[in-house]
Amino acid sequence: MNELEEKTKVTVKIYGEDYVVKGYAKPGYIEGIAAYVDKKMNLIGQKNFHLTLSKVAVLAALNIADELYKLQEDYDSLVRLLEEEKAIK
Amino acid sequence: MNELEEKTKVTVKIYGEDYVVKGYAKPGYIEGIAAYVDKKMNLIGQKNFHLTLSKVAVLAALNIADELYKLQEDYDSLVRLLEEEKAIK
Repeated sequence: MNELEEKTKVTVKIYGEDYVVKGYAKPGYIEGIAAYVDKKMNLIGQKNFHLTLSKVAVLAALNIADELYKLQEDYDSLVRLLEEEKAIK
Repeated sequence: MNELEEKTKVTVKIYGEDYVVKGYAKPGYIEGIAAYVDKKMNLIGQKNFHLTLSKVAVLAALNIADELYKLQEDYDSLVRLLEEEKAIK
């Protein structure tokens, strides 16, 4: 089994709870995305302290999906720009 | 108040629960990201049917954050490529 095939198992703390995350990414990468989700959930929880854990998590997921959609739009614009640059040359 | 300043309020169903989402985006856009989060949560829930709602939501948030990080890497590579293209000309 080579290095890429080894599954990583990392315990991360998100919004005060422990989660065991399994994946093929490096532990540092998994910890990075966990810290990102934790930050988002804390921001939402601080603004709306009456919300349940599941509502905070769903709102965080929506928030991150919004960022993903916006970045996808920027990415698509860049691809078009690159295609135009190539067409000019 | 112009159109951009009007706050939208949309009720969306995610993983069987209703959420009122407020924002400046168009209702169709908000419904789109809600459908995306719903799909992610259903995929996770189907594979791990013993998980609680909050765990499914946190795992969905992690999953979407992972996609965001990967897209950010692709975006950064494209920016570098575009800068190189400009330097060559």
